[in-house]
Amino acid sequence: MQEVMIGSSRQYPPGKPLLLRRNAEIVSTGAGLPDEIVTNQDLIDELGLIATARAVEFSIGIRERRRAEYSVAPSFYLEKAARECIQRANVAPEQIDRIIYARLFGDHFIPATALRVLERLGIRRGIPVMDISAACSGVMHAVEIALGFINAGDRYVLVLGGDRTAMGKEIAVKKDTRTVFLNGDGFAGILLGYSSTPKFLARYFYTDSDLSDFAYIPFGTELLNKTHAFGPAMLALTMPDGKSIHQSVLDSCRLITARLLQLAQLQIEDIDFVITSDQTYLVWQEQLRILGVPQEKSISCFPRYGNTVAAMVPLNLNEAIVTGALKRGMKVLMMGHGAGASGGGFIFTY
Amino acid sequence: MQEVMIGSSRQYPPGKPLLLRRNAEIVSTGAGLPDEIVTNQDLIDELGLIATARAVEFSIGIRERRRAEYSVAPSFYLEKAARECIQRANVAPEQIDRIIYARLFGDHFIPATALRVLERLGIRRGIPVMDISAACSGVMHAVEIALGFINAGDRYVLVLGGDRTAMGKEIAVKKDTRTVFLNGDGFAGILLGYSSTPKFLARYFYTDSDLSDFAYIPFGTELLNKTHAFGPAMLALTMPDGKSIHQSVLDSCRLITARLLQLAQLQIEDIDFVITSDQTYLVWQEQLRILGVPQEKSISCFPRYGNTVAAMVPLNLNEAIVTGALKRGMKVLMMGHGAGASGGGFIFTY
Repeated sequence: MQEVMIGSSRQYPPGKPLLLRRNAEIVSTGAGLPDEIVTNQDLIDELGLIATARAVEFSIGIRERRRAEYSVAPSFYLEKAARECIQRANVAPEQIDRIIYARLFGDHFIPATALRVLERLGIRRGIPVMDISAACSGVMHAVEIALGFINAGDRYVLVLGGDRTAMGKEIAVKKDTRTVFLNGDGFAGILLGYSSTPKFLARYFYTDSDLSDFAYIPFGTELLNKTHAFGPAMLALTMPDGKSIHQSVLDSCRLITARLLQLAQLQIEDIDFVITSDQTYLVWQEQLRILGVPQEKSISCFPRYGNTVAAMVPLNLNEAIVTGALKRGMKVLMMGHGAGASGGGFIFTY
Repeated sequence: MQEVMIGSSRQYPPGKPLLLRRNAEIVSTGAGLPDEIVTNQDLIDELGLIATARAVEFSIGIRERRRAEYSVAPSFYLEKAARECIQRANVAPEQIDRIIYARLFGDHFIPATALRVLERLGIRRGIPVMDISAACSGVMHAVEIALGFINAGDRYVLVLGGDRTAMGKEIAVKKDTRTVFLNGDGFAGILLGYSSTPKFLARYFYTDSDLSDFAYIPFGTELLNKTHAFGPAMLALTMPDGKSIHQSVLDSCRLITARLLQLAQLQIEDIDFVITSDQTYLVWQEQLRILGVPQEKSISCFPRYGNTVAAMVPLNLNEAIVTGALKRGMKVLMMGHGAGASGGGFIFTY
């Protein structure tokens, strides 16, 4: 693997050992995908775009994506993902100690959307839940928080991620036709539980504030003095410079992998499976090429689900487990790249 | 103290011991308050309300509140709070391992507003930062996450909270004149650090999804099929039933206190100081009355700052420390109540 070379000139923090008194493991995963499948041709027809479905597939590697109903809340799909996690783990909902939702918009701002998931699951024990704010690396942050909770005494922590990100019409208003095809709506979950033996071998997280304008959602108090900016379009993720994001994701992949391997005292050849954020199909292929890992040792849902932001990593993990590609005992490198501004991941034994 | 009696009929989770391998302590606090002071009379004049300043003060106990400039981002005030924490701790910004911001709206949605704070502080080390979604109990959640990070290896974690919540004009649009006077803009920080001896003796968190409609901010994907609802007013916190919130905060205070005392094996008489969320001045007084704690053993910034949502608890903590009321070695009960839906807190030795 090449030496770590990041676009900006800064120093990145060194890795730190993960000091756990109580270990954790990934117990199960689940997906909560909307039923509606929207093909490239569907979008072209709906939005009256000048493009061909074939050209779109060729340029960004996507064939179709899922679309959530406008009238259905994210918590509906999160419940689906949560139930899959719970059923596969053969755990009763009442055994869960916490829920952390890595959210983009959620059902609403306050209270936490995780509280709606609790209601939908019928959990009446009043367990603590929270939303964290998250984009592409959000579920990685939630997993790290979950490790902290299990370390301090919890038995099971359910991590959820994903949101409504397709926003076709809203993005079309902005006339950003490239981005229109990129995103899909997706939701997924990871159930973490106490383990009597160490499973998480290393974790690494970093930020790069120089790259913080690469991808943004303008909603926030900055809009208060721009009343005209209010409207559904402000929910659309804006990525003014796709090429730089592509590069920053690759740099992030190099950095995180180098630090994690060093911390775990492993070589890339020791890694049995790679789970990463596939913002595009090309960026997934490029990451594997840089790492020298064959595509059979990884998975990308991008062609079928698109860029689902916070759901990308857990959907890929779920797919790898469901298809049998990822088996118990394998050493996994799992990472999420937040458009350069933020990223992190883990090496763990599944 | 009375037995725990909560409004809804549910069972709340029992307390769990806080298992720490590496202990943490509160190193310092800081405030980031806007300069502009808005009196009740100022609001009455600005909004053309039929009320007297005296009546407002008598009914909810507020004299004035701070107001952030529309054109100034929350990260500006968060930097102020962060710098106070750092200076008082005599720690260099570069020694901080993480920043967690308990955010309502923040500067913008994506990337994390904590990343803007990093930029403003001039920290070039690329440390991990994150925003968590938070209302009145948000900083308590952030402190618990920080304990987890320190437990797993971090040295210093900076927790920030607060946002622009006054929204006078926006709430006035909704014709909710009572709420217009309630909120203020405020920002505060708590610097946590590794401690060689146990300082945090207990923590307890819960939710009550039955009460999740008591306070809400409608922004989120639920708005997507209500285009007419887009506008600054959607940033305003809506509390349709103030009396029920008052009651739920008192119930939350009883529950959290009972659980924390049990976990720490202490009596309320062993507590030297109480820091709590003061949604109103009356609800602060009532909490102390229920606990049997004299007002000298607590503090409320409500008359001067109003309800600053996520900043209430850290602003009260900061005020208690700055005024000298809270001294090193004291046993502190600190809690935040999220309008009934969510709450939690700690017993710690300062």
